[in-house]
Amino acid sequence: MFKTNNMKKSILQIVRASYEPKVPKIMKRVIEIQEGNPTESVSDQEEIKKLFPNTYGLPIIQFVEGTEKKQRPPTNVGVILSGGQAPGGHNVIAGLFDGIKNMNPDSRLYGFLMGPVGLIEHKYKELTADIINEYRNVGGFDIIGSGRTKLDTEEQFNKGLKVLKKLNVSALVIIGGDDSNTNACILAEYYKRINANVQVIGCPKTIDGDLKNGIIETSFGFDTACKVYSEMIGNIQRDCNSSRKYWHFIKLMGRSASHIALECALQVQPNICIISEEIEAKNQSLDDIIQYIANIVAQRASNGDNFGTVLVPEGLVEFIPTMKNLISELNEYLAHNETEFKCIKHSKQRKHILDNLSHENAKIYESLPETIARQLTLDRDPHGNVQVSLIETEKLLAEMVKKRLEKMTSEGKYIGRFSTITHFFGYEGRCAAPSNYDADYCYSLGYTAAELIGNGKTGYMSLVRNTTAPVSEWIIGGIPITMMMNMERRHGKIKPVIQKALVKLDGMPFRAFASQRDQWAINTDYVYPGPIQYFGPSEICDQPSKTLQIEKSNTDY
Amino acid sequence: MFKTNNMKKSILQIVRASYEPKVPKIMKRVIEIQEGNPTESVSDQEEIKKLFPNTYGLPIIQFVEGTEKKQRPPTNVGVILSGGQAPGGHNVIAGLFDGIKNMNPDSRLYGFLMGPVGLIEHKYKELTADIINEYRNVGGFDIIGSGRTKLDTEEQFNKGLKVLKKLNVSALVIIGGDDSNTNACILAEYYKRINANVQVIGCPKTIDGDLKNGIIETSFGFDTACKVYSEMIGNIQRDCNSSRKYWHFIKLMGRSASHIALECALQVQPNICIISEEIEAKNQSLDDIIQYIANIVAQRASNGDNFGTVLVPEGLVEFIPTMKNLISELNEYLAHNETEFKCIKHSKQRKHILDNLSHENAKIYESLPETIARQLTLDRDPHGNVQVSLIETEKLLAEMVKKRLEKMTSEGKYIGRFSTITHFFGYEGRCAAPSNYDADYCYSLGYTAAELIGNGKTGYMSLVRNTTAPVSEWIIGGIPITMMMNMERRHGKIKPVIQKALVKLDGMPFRAFASQRDQWAINTDYVYPGPIQYFGPSEICDQPSKTLQIEKSNTDY
Repeated sequence: MFKTNNMKKSILQIVRASYEPKVPKIMKRVIEIQEGNPTESVSDQEEIKKLFPNTYGLPIIQFVEGTEKKQRPPTNVGVILSGGQAPGGHNVIAGLFDGIKNMNPDSRLYGFLMGPVGLIEHKYKELTADIINEYRNVGGFDIIGSGRTKLDTEEQFNKGLKVLKKLNVSALVIIGGDDSNTNACILAEYYKRINANVQVIGCPKTIDGDLKNGIIETSFGFDTACKVYSEMIGNIQRDCNSSRKYWHFIKLMGRSASHIALECALQVQPNICIISEEIEAKNQSLDDIIQYIANIVAQRASNGDNFGTVLVPEGLVEFIPTMKNLISELNEYLAHNETEFKCIKHSKQRKHILDNLSHENAKIYESLPETIARQLTLDRDPHGNVQVSLIETEKLLAEMVKKRLEKMTSEGKYIGRFSTITHFFGYEGRCAAPSNYDADYCYSLGYTAAELIGNGKTGYMSLVRNTTAPVSEWIIGGIPITMMMNMERRHGKIKPVIQKALVKLDGMPFRAFASQRDQWAINTDYVYPGPIQYFGPSEICDQPSKTLQIEKSNTDY
Repeated sequence: MFKTNNMKKSILQIVRASYEPKVPKIMKRVIEIQEGNPTESVSDQEEIKKLFPNTYGLPIIQFVEGTEKKQRPPTNVGVILSGGQAPGGHNVIAGLFDGIKNMNPDSRLYGFLMGPVGLIEHKYKELTADIINEYRNVGGFDIIGSGRTKLDTEEQFNKGLKVLKKLNVSALVIIGGDDSNTNACILAEYYKRINANVQVIGCPKTIDGDLKNGIIETSFGFDTACKVYSEMIGNIQRDCNSSRKYWHFIKLMGRSASHIALECALQVQPNICIISEEIEAKNQSLDDIIQYIANIVAQRASNGDNFGTVLVPEGLVEFIPTMKNLISELNEYLAHNETEFKCIKHSKQRKHILDNLSHENAKIYESLPETIARQLTLDRDPHGNVQVSLIETEKLLAEMVKKRLEKMTSEGKYIGRFSTITHFFGYEGRCAAPSNYDADYCYSLGYTAAELIGNGKTGYMSLVRNTTAPVSEWIIGGIPITMMMNMERRHGKIKPVIQKALVKLDGMPFRAFASQRDQWAINTDYVYPGPIQYFGPSEICDQPSKTLQIEKSNTDY
């Protein structure tokens, strides 16, 4: 397990290994800590404060140029990769390694294996320079593996503490998404409370792009993953525009938010892109979405263009209020009647469901293609819930639009050919080698985490800002995790959690998209971004995501 | 249609447009034609000779350094893109354009729209320098579009001749696969026979890589498409190796031959890659394949590795002798009982098929997952045949292996978790921007086609050789198309056709794969090639495919 030797490498890997991430100029100087004013959580201040008495209200931190290099003792640090992979994870670890070695060459780094479970079960390995060097600037989380175990009980915390003490580790860095960082904060609070003398620092990871706010500009991996998906979609669009005979329905990873779909749309200018948050805000039904797509298909057909592209966010069905109701009733019903349902003959199950749903939901269920309807009742997780990620939303839309067009044909509203091809892109982008942006951003995040540790901080997330400027101008520091929290119902309980960043309909990235989409729908304005480049001119290799560029520019749409 | 103005371009497109394809040094000098000895077709010499009295037996041509630049009159040339897209098509046209302009600046180039149908229906546009410059080094066939109309009747030839005469076009370049080049040769023969004074030149295009022989090293597009697929597979493998919990079944485009799957396997070192030609040669059944995969899954599981990758060529089921028999009986049966079958209730169709198939085929049909079995009976082309490209072979294998593992578990032969994710890559690679190799190769192919035209040749395919050497050393010339032909049964008729190049089991690329696959199966030896690079060091940007490199090296496996 975790072989690091004798890996055969591609030529690109070998050459790319020697890339030195560009760093903020402050990282080359003597660094001093500058603390801002006390902070408040985004809402529910009283409750959050009560739950986090030791880590609430901390100031935002910025590292600035100092005068005197501080001597620091050797520090042993642990690191955990938590949750789904994101490009750049290895560079966070490399930056962290270089950061703690810079503080004191005798510092050591331990990686816990396969996610938080490694901490709980005391599975780890020391990450030495030779191992770190094998993983600089490459994709994946395979240096130590990742996992989805939730680190959220005191029993786990205490178990973990044992191995931390054994290894003399005084700080733990958790690289994860909103959930993992929430748990990092709970852990920080707990270790502080019991005087465990272990600091906990988080790093904002997720390709989904939903871990950001007024202070954190983006989560790492989003840039690279979107560029890989956009490369593929661009290639498909060029194909589409050459053979002029298919509609491609392309589902994109990202269940909780539509940032990936939006970013890809801004990069490739598809004919159609559905944004879940808009569907929910406008209370649109599945039928509304089908009609919206069918109308564009019909209008393009009337121009002789029987082809096009539709981008669909993975989590769409959960944002359609009526579908949410249907799924919720199905979950409820099947949870209580599981055994009964399982004994019903396959061919009778559909009727059985229809007979037992409320009238309104039965109507929606009946309108779904049979294969999709079956996915809603058969593929369930251990808690009996529909596994939304297994629903082939791209096929659902393609099939239902086809049916709608047949109806429109019979009404004289559509003349054309409608052939579809469906795609789902997710696993293709999560482990790509990081773009220069992510390689640089991640390295700085890791290095900054080391600085936070050196300064005795806990309950912070590593912070790198101003990233649309040249790297030398980037600003590094830390943000208290409690500042991002609010109270939310999750799995039936009210909990303190980091607020997820959804696509804002009054935000400039969405408005930039919305102001152009009617044009893109009818014209064929495809853009072909091509593959990520590592060696070319800076305007090709170093650009951040369109989303970030638009957010940071002052253009109004 | 075919807007070329106001396209919004990605930055990469803009910068890449100025790439000047590297060219063989001979192309910068005064060129003279050198003709070899008369040639013979690969087999069926008597029949081919009889069918092609005017274009049979022509010599292979090589262009060599000459002494005196020849004055040539302006020549109007037509060009057609035929069949599926392949990266580099635009560069063939750019090379052709520069080639005929080099002969005489008053030469003109006309593109026929949407494939051969443009010639037949007189739809064309003149390709001027400003248009050509918009399409240099970019993917797609969208400069004039492509199509699959077969150009094979004298009526079509005569219709086409009218527009050629109207435009004063004396040479036609057909960029296509084996079928299109076969038809190019038939057209060349016909125009020669009726003294139409129109030359016809072919260019070897297909991502499938099955148009090659002892003289043609590769078809264009193969290199780029395989690199794109390998990028994706590499990313998936890195993901697979990080989360360690999925088996990915990845189907790759390429119906007639497994070159793409083989090339990708050589690039990424997957755990399993099925080669159709081997299955056929060894007369293996679907059951054999399932058992082969299941055994590897079980062996990896015994090492704690419940993850892996399986590459599957698109055309696999047609190469499994027993499946071929089943499909053939289904085709036969459904062709004769179409109406009857359609009237049978959906839920009774399966039983009906089982009752009407021969015992042996019924047994195989029954063993298939229901969804796949349904695909075999429902999705039929206008001729009533199974649409093999719609069969989800990747899901078929994943489901059947799962079942087999359940059986093995009950027999105590397997302990492990088996979760699968399926992918199909095809449209993602056909229109990618060409790699340097394809950009250079295609430009030379087009330029060489112009030279063949200038030298009055017809019935030739443009030929660029020695392409594993630096571009300056590449050799250019022409190969008579009749030389590649044999007589084969296609769609029930014996016809003269270009022999398809299948994967040779005694060829070095397959042997290189076969000598390592048992290692790759058990070890996790994944290689991550990363995205195509255009600006880096030559060893990253300019390498030809592994297949070609192995074929050209003298290494024995």
